[in-house]
Amino acid sequence: MSERGKLYLIPTPLTDENVNEITDYNKSVVSALSHFIVEDEKTARRFIKRIKPEKDQSSLKIYLLNEHQYANSISETFNLLKAGTDIGLLSDAGCPGIADPGSDYITIAHTIGIRVIPLSGPSSIFLSLMASGFNGQQFTFNGYLPRDSKARQQKISELEKQVMKSGITQIFMETPYRNQSILNDILSTCKNSTRLSIACNITSKNEFISTKEIGAWKKSTPDLNKKPCIFILGK
Amino acid sequence: MSERGKLYLIPTPLTDENVNEITDYNKSVVSALSHFIVEDEKTARRFIKRIKPEKDQSSLKIYLLNEHQYANSISETFNLLKAGTDIGLLSDAGCPGIADPGSDYITIAHTIGIRVIPLSGPSSIFLSLMASGFNGQQFTFNGYLPRDSKARQQKISELEKQVMKSGITQIFMETPYRNQSILNDILSTCKNSTRLSIACNITSKNEFISTKEIGAWKKSTPDLNKKPCIFILGK
Repeated sequence: MSERGKLYLIPTPLTDENVNEITDYNKSVVSALSHFIVEDEKTARRFIKRIKPEKDQSSLKIYLLNEHQYANSISETFNLLKAGTDIGLLSDAGCPGIADPGSDYITIAHTIGIRVIPLSGPSSIFLSLMASGFNGQQFTFNGYLPRDSKARQQKISELEKQVMKSGITQIFMETPYRNQSILNDILSTCKNSTRLSIACNITSKNEFISTKEIGAWKKSTPDLNKKPCIFILGK
Repeated sequence: MSERGKLYLIPTPLTDENVNEITDYNKSVVSALSHFIVEDEKTARRFIKRIKPEKDQSSLKIYLLNEHQYANSISETFNLLKAGTDIGLLSDAGCPGIADPGSDYITIAHTIGIRVIPLSGPSSIFLSLMASGFNGQQFTFNGYLPRDSKARQQKISELEKQVMKSGITQIFMETPYRNQSILNDILSTCKNSTRLSIACNITSKNEFISTKEIGAWKKSTPDLNKKPCIFILGK
């Protein structure tokens, strides 16, 4: 029986203009692969082109992770993996499987004994946690908070209580066009002495990361509209 | 007034033999800096030498994050930052401030308005979460569990209940020489149908990452003794 293929989990840049966070090792893995499972074909091809312009795009086999194509992608790509072909899994930005699709696919890989190899790269969650200065020994990533403003304020209040009680850092995010309203909710819900870190446009030229007490944020509230942000409450 | 210095947070490799996960951008930052805040001087000098062999080691100014030197390091380095000198913060392995010292120092930087710039790099927590196939939309890193076996089993049981109830992935670790006993505690405490991911020796040649049900782990229990591991319970 031939050796099975490996599934490489390949991080992609957080912003269009920046491939600085991609290692030469990751570039060499991308260079060696012809088969990719991706979230969006156009974004994936652009990424591969940016880091390996000499690669022949017409030779690439691209399989989609989206709901319409998922079943086909699964059966075709797992047959390839079983037969010995290595495959790369890319999400649109950041690390596959973290606040991003891909984990269901990785789960199946484990159940049929495919080796899964995660590659290092940028994660807005981890970069913002590092830079926050908050407790990095215990933290929770909560993903997106409820959309309804009342339910969201209640959730923010719960997270604040958890920080105070347990010291566990609480990380969350929002779709960029709702950032200003979630910031307003945080400022109106939390105590003035609670500390909030805002990490905005991470790894781009306009990166802005700052940790201050809510009282200080109220005095000087940044414009976060349509800018990708991570919010962290911490001690 | 001169422009203030910037504080770069610089990830280091997870294993001695591997500098693959360090980007050219990070190497260029290290190359441009002369001042470093570090966990251990010897490890830091070895890292700088491995990625920039041509750098003159005698020109480097190294300040220690450890408890004996911390007060001196703080006053000297913040004076330098205020006067316009850029400084790099390194921990021994992985990302500064995440399951590692450094966050107190970063906190002070924020309070005096120093710009904090986190660089992308390897994190055993994130690599193992990516590769686990578990829910990456909501997760908690719990750090180290209690040392006492009874308290630890109770904690493992709590984490298992949280996974079942909320679907929030639960990540934890142990010092390498106690890995085998924590694995025994997990196998004896959790239900056979609960899923456990073990990520061991991440980014090294002997990397081993696998996600299986507890029942399957009981049938084939790996030797984790003295190997750095991350444990994850998930759905």
